[in-house]
Amino acid sequence: MTNRITQLFNIRYPVIQAGMIWTAGWRLASAVSNAGGLGLIGSGSMYPDVLREHIRKCKQATDKPFGVNVPLIYPDIDKHIQIIIEERVKIVFSSAGNPNTWTPLLKQHGVTVVHVVPGSKYAIKAEAAGCDAVVAEGFEAGGHNGREETTTICLVPGVCQSVKIPVMAAGGIASGRAMMAAFALGAEGVQIGSRFAATEESSAHDHFKQAVIHSAEGDTMLTLKELIPVRMLKNKFYTQVKEAEERCAGKEELQLLLGRGRAKKGIFEGNLDEGELEIGMVSALIRDIRPAAQVLQDIWKEFCSLQKGIGEWKI
Amino acid sequence: MTNRITQLFNIRYPVIQAGMIWTAGWRLASAVSNAGGLGLIGSGSMYPDVLREHIRKCKQATDKPFGVNVPLIYPDIDKHIQIIIEERVKIVFSSAGNPNTWTPLLKQHGVTVVHVVPGSKYAIKAEAAGCDAVVAEGFEAGGHNGREETTTICLVPGVCQSVKIPVMAAGGIASGRAMMAAFALGAEGVQIGSRFAATEESSAHDHFKQAVIHSAEGDTMLTLKELIPVRMLKNKFYTQVKEAEERCAGKEELQLLLGRGRAKKGIFEGNLDEGELEIGMVSALIRDIRPAAQVLQDIWKEFCSLQKGIGEWKI
Repeated sequence: MTNRITQLFNIRYPVIQAGMIWTAGWRLASAVSNAGGLGLIGSGSMYPDVLREHIRKCKQATDKPFGVNVPLIYPDIDKHIQIIIEERVKIVFSSAGNPNTWTPLLKQHGVTVVHVVPGSKYAIKAEAAGCDAVVAEGFEAGGHNGREETTTICLVPGVCQSVKIPVMAAGGIASGRAMMAAFALGAEGVQIGSRFAATEESSAHDHFKQAVIHSAEGDTMLTLKELIPVRMLKNKFYTQVKEAEERCAGKEELQLLLGRGRAKKGIFEGNLDEGELEIGMVSALIRDIRPAAQVLQDIWKEFCSLQKGIGEWKI
Repeated sequence: MTNRITQLFNIRYPVIQAGMIWTAGWRLASAVSNAGGLGLIGSGSMYPDVLREHIRKCKQATDKPFGVNVPLIYPDIDKHIQIIIEERVKIVFSSAGNPNTWTPLLKQHGVTVVHVVPGSKYAIKAEAAGCDAVVAEGFEAGGHNGREETTTICLVPGVCQSVKIPVMAAGGIASGRAMMAAFALGAEGVQIGSRFAATEESSAHDHFKQAVIHSAEGDTMLTLKELIPVRMLKNKFYTQVKEAEERCAGKEELQLLLGRGRAKKGIFEGNLDEGELEIGMVSALIRDIRPAAQVLQDIWKEFCSLQKGIGEWKI
């Protein structure tokens, strides 16, 4: 398949592996890139020197294109950007912040820049800032999310109508069927998080991966809306947040309850009670831990078979 | 197109117009049925004698199949069921309640029964109760909605894996593109509400229809979760609810604020400040008021053109 996304990144399949914190290190990113997708290193949980190490290891592990996801609210963002430029990373996916701040500098250094957006108005801003593409990320997605709660099926067509640059869809996509749904809505690529979190190469703790593949419909919720909305698996920590919210605890109390390092505790250290288990709604449809290359192949095979099937409908 | 849904209802297009309160009377239902879809009368806002009148007028206005939507929590539900049987209505879509209570009686009288569900576990119950099909209704849908907040892209595949009876998708669908997305996810039909609310034959007030077509992304929210979650347009009433919730008002206060007749006031009487403006998230993508037959034809045309296009992809 050749489209604007495969051409933009010079990849075989228009499938991007999301740069998830504590999950997407060089092992996962290089596995996805080697398999023909686009792997992203998740820099949001990395100190600058750790990021540099992951970029270097990723270069050694693959000669295919890969990128780095950069949450723009990260405190050491200037150091991250500097390392990305020094290490000649060619692709950056930015999220959670203003695309105007760093896009021009990155573009000057020949970096392809994609911004992740939860709404059409942000897509328009990203296009104006010079981004090469956007990811339209729906309410379904794990981790930090938008306040308007626009879901993938409503967001993708809206974003596609709002910008001319190519659009990738994210949120709720873990299968060839969902990938086809995204393409029907106008996307030219998909960014997949949760399905790649439950792979052998994911650096998430095995307890976390097990919680993901054993989760059921309704087991994730978008919560902590008073601070920054985040989608996570329901667990003891989630229940504490919910109870605090139900008695109208203020921002300060919620911030204190959240504390520091909750996501690391849950995702990387596997503490299923006290950790913040960030994952997408689609985890309910994920049943096993597989090698990342197999995940990509299975999604692509289902997508191709569905394409053939739809073409043969008599209507 | 022939599939289990067109065969079940003996209709030309697998498109069902949702039986929305204050919106879906005999005019809208018969217009959709005459155009080759399945029109549903929304009985949830009708006294029993009004429902009887709408059924009789619908029979006069079309010789095609049509049905009635019945919210099972309706206080006069037994009278509604009696009228449906007496008037020999052949199709019932039930929602918001236990499908075990009335499905056997309706089936005894030769009625095709479909239950609307916000989750896979409810789909399994509906199948066990003898329902002929289910509508998997996502978080995007207008009006009353489930507590688990599962969206269409995650819900439809889950429901399709859980039951053998055919599945229709609802929530976020107002175009041929979204209909194709639903079919890619495994649905064999779609139930469309908001798009048909903004038609000439819809009995909603023109002020309401104008509010729908002028709404933007992020303008609907699922709210009143302490009572029954309901998706509505943000307006003065919504703001009052939000303020009450933010200071942790109890159920009783919210119930008092909601009062009686809010949906009628908003949808039927066109009071955009004080009314409860129930509509789906996809209203942001609806830009005009058209005849219902044209809505159906436009959706179908886009669906067919997309089917042909997907079939021609080189992958």
